[in-house]
Amino acid sequence: MKNRSIIATQKDYNVEKITKIAIAKGDGIGPEIMKATLKIMKAAGAKIETETIDVGEQVYLSGNSAGITDSAWDAISRNKIILKAPITTPQGKGYKSLNVTLRKSLGLFANVRPVTALHPFVKTNFPTMDIVVIRENEEDLYAGIEHRQTEDVVQCLKLITRPGCEKIVRYAFEYARAYNRKKVTCMIKDNIMKLTDGLFHTVFKEIALEYPEIESNSQIIDIAAAKVATVPENYDVIVTSNLYGDIISDIIAEIGGSVGMAGSANIGKNVAMFEAIHGSAPDIAGKKIANPSGLLNAAVMMLAHIGQPKVADRIKNAWLATLEAGIHTADVYQESVSSKKVTTEEFADAIIERLDSNPFKFPVSNLSKGSGTITIPEYKRKNSVKKLVGVDVFIDWKGNNPEAIGNNLSEIKSHNLKLKMITNRGVKVFPNGLKETYCTDHWRCRFVAQNAEIKTTEPHYETVEYEQVIALLSKLHQNDFDLIKTENLYEFDGIRGFSLGQGE
Amino acid sequence: MKNRSIIATQKDYNVEKITKIAIAKGDGIGPEIMKATLKIMKAAGAKIETETIDVGEQVYLSGNSAGITDSAWDAISRNKIILKAPITTPQGKGYKSLNVTLRKSLGLFANVRPVTALHPFVKTNFPTMDIVVIRENEEDLYAGIEHRQTEDVVQCLKLITRPGCEKIVRYAFEYARAYNRKKVTCMIKDNIMKLTDGLFHTVFKEIALEYPEIESNSQIIDIAAAKVATVPENYDVIVTSNLYGDIISDIIAEIGGSVGMAGSANIGKNVAMFEAIHGSAPDIAGKKIANPSGLLNAAVMMLAHIGQPKVADRIKNAWLATLEAGIHTADVYQESVSSKKVTTEEFADAIIERLDSNPFKFPVSNLSKGSGTITIPEYKRKNSVKKLVGVDVFIDWKGNNPEAIGNNLSEIKSHNLKLKMITNRGVKVFPNGLKETYCTDHWRCRFVAQNAEIKTTEPHYETVEYEQVIALLSKLHQNDFDLIKTENLYEFDGIRGFSLGQGE
Repeated sequence: MKNRSIIATQKDYNVEKITKIAIAKGDGIGPEIMKATLKIMKAAGAKIETETIDVGEQVYLSGNSAGITDSAWDAISRNKIILKAPITTPQGKGYKSLNVTLRKSLGLFANVRPVTALHPFVKTNFPTMDIVVIRENEEDLYAGIEHRQTEDVVQCLKLITRPGCEKIVRYAFEYARAYNRKKVTCMIKDNIMKLTDGLFHTVFKEIALEYPEIESNSQIIDIAAAKVATVPENYDVIVTSNLYGDIISDIIAEIGGSVGMAGSANIGKNVAMFEAIHGSAPDIAGKKIANPSGLLNAAVMMLAHIGQPKVADRIKNAWLATLEAGIHTADVYQESVSSKKVTTEEFADAIIERLDSNPFKFPVSNLSKGSGTITIPEYKRKNSVKKLVGVDVFIDWKGNNPEAIGNNLSEIKSHNLKLKMITNRGVKVFPNGLKETYCTDHWRCRFVAQNAEIKTTEPHYETVEYEQVIALLSKLHQNDFDLIKTENLYEFDGIRGFSLGQGE
Repeated sequence: MKNRSIIATQKDYNVEKITKIAIAKGDGIGPEIMKATLKIMKAAGAKIETETIDVGEQVYLSGNSAGITDSAWDAISRNKIILKAPITTPQGKGYKSLNVTLRKSLGLFANVRPVTALHPFVKTNFPTMDIVVIRENEEDLYAGIEHRQTEDVVQCLKLITRPGCEKIVRYAFEYARAYNRKKVTCMIKDNIMKLTDGLFHTVFKEIALEYPEIESNSQIIDIAAAKVATVPENYDVIVTSNLYGDIISDIIAEIGGSVGMAGSANIGKNVAMFEAIHGSAPDIAGKKIANPSGLLNAAVMMLAHIGQPKVADRIKNAWLATLEAGIHTADVYQESVSSKKVTTEEFADAIIERLDSNPFKFPVSNLSKGSGTITIPEYKRKNSVKKLVGVDVFIDWKGNNPEAIGNNLSEIKSHNLKLKMITNRGVKVFPNGLKETYCTDHWRCRFVAQNAEIKTTEPHYETVEYEQVIALLSKLHQNDFDLIKTENLYEFDGIRGFSLGQGE
């Protein structure tokens, strides 16, 4: 057995034991749907104890730009589990997104979004779709590290990390095993981004081997997005990086049509937060007509997470049976398929009446058929031998003839480094560029050791000392080159850790 | 009138004048569909003169890893316009993608992909969709500039440039005006990537003002992808960057269902290439059953591009009328909607018979109702005042306590620079980080001038000299910090050219 740290297991949240939950009642329809949700959970036998926290509109308006009080932070660190109704962020600048704050502050690395078709009560072209998207939540382009260093060019860093990939991929497979799912699909673009998306894909393939009972496959993100939009029935659990996950989960929510009834989770090592996807709908607040299904589905996810999957199934099945009985809140009500239009409270009571019923047409929820346990091992950093073999120096230059800058740089023989090539927007322009290549003012100039053998099919890079890099920068600067950034070139255990230029 | 360089106008390609075209007959079904396409173009009165070029399978197998002969390159530079049937790339390593080679070598900056529903002959849930995706083709993450510099972290650079944005956005509006389109939609993620996607969006808004007769709007890419997949009827021309365009165009092709009948174009300043989207289908080669529609639609795009939009309309309308008449090749034939199953040649003849017909149900093609002219001005680089105000030094460090590295770096007072903050994956961890933030071995350490005032809501950065940066790097290196990359911090005309850390 591997040594694993535990995110959430039945050991932690024994069904006999009561789990403490921080409750954010939210704004707009928030309090109404929270009341209904809590009533249903209680009737279903959920072993929870709630503590209300203050977040949202009133907190923002009191002058707290993050929308969350200190006592709410304390309650979250005591309770570890948050069930959150939608909040209203006031109009105007300076208010920070509460979700971003919570995600960043609490290390919520996984965003989990299940979408199940509810046809014919919610119209969709895909009546049998049932997908869970597990999206990496902390890295990728969304780290937001951007630099403008020339007149023409702006840059954003896409960071993909091995611990980040291991955590999210492991979570996806553990989720599948815990909640009785059959297949995990990985989405990447590693035919283009061989190192970054390549790492995500490599980690996926490594970890998939540990779950032989779960089917796994990988797809290139553009094809994957197209297939998700046309044959969503072919997907079960999807795991992907932050940007792709953002796009894919929105496509799935939209084609499923049930955004108003879906929940989502943000999972961290110590804390997890569950919420409805929809907003606070202030226009219908207080009218007693709000649909509590989104928050209720979030509560179902929460109950499974804290080791009460049987209670989760009981609620989910009663909810499905209620929908099938045609008992619908106003947002879902259609004369052709509904039997009765009900208030929020009547809807909750109808669910409670059906707590021992299963749906007859929708698939029965069977979360409790899985292992119920999710464990994520601590990341163990490997210890590769890292060898510096060169440096990419980026230069701001307003000329347009690559031969001019290339020949100038080639003459600079600084401390045993030599110019290997120059690219502009990734395309090699020196030596032997093509005259049609359009050149911006952003030149990436690759320097390696004088005696590196780099023209063969098996290039051999010599070790470079960082002092040589510093000396090179000094010399280039003395020669009036406008140096804007550097990227060191490394080998790890003899494997090249940098891409070649297009045409190199 | 602005001073504009011309990409393609009726002046260049006068309808009275014959335009020279390089023809690649391709592999598999390529020669058959090219023959049919040329026959239809000739019958419709296209003023073209063709020269055949050798590219594809036989060229690859002769030992040419790029799949294109020197004489083909010569013919392309003479003719400027390429009509290319699908080719077969042999199995095995070392063969380069011909399309990537052509795109990079010829500066083909715009990928243009129209998708029109052909319901009921091709099934789709969206029988009225009619979209053109115009995708930037040269930059973004697809420049493929990747570096691994620590055990944990790999990085890819997303480069967005003003000339790149101006060219593609201008092309989209010019395309709309030239070919009688009404609306251009821009897709970005500038709520997260404020500088890179922000630049694309800014350029879009600037250029849109010059086309008041064309409606324009912008959408965030995740919502946009979801809406494209569910209400594609709401879109007309879409313009976006490389990665988003890759995803969006695949979604649209798939939901439209007519991948087998669609053409696409790759447009450059001097050269343009037109082709079918589908492959060479070697399994049905020589059987006389191939559908020439994909290549024919590429030819329609080509004719419009070279200033013969009336000929283009004539062919397109005859083709639509033929489809409506139920005269279908085997791939489209269905008993319920077809009247006759025909060979490639019979299909071409049926189109030729209808060259003076319009479709009665499908919308009539009216490319010639637009201005017919596309002009793209030369990029004029502005000349902002660039001021160096600091540097982000990235350090490989295996510790996990941000206070430790932060305090050590704070003690280093090198040549009037001071540590401002440290982030890990974009989240501020020093000073005043949160203990829950997971830290990789990749630390971004921001240094600014000692006397910069940076704690106010209106920070004031002092000028830094690059010598100070070099001195800092030397000092950090002497203190055994493992420096892996640097990003200079600049202001342009007093505007900050770098993002703040999350939590900064």
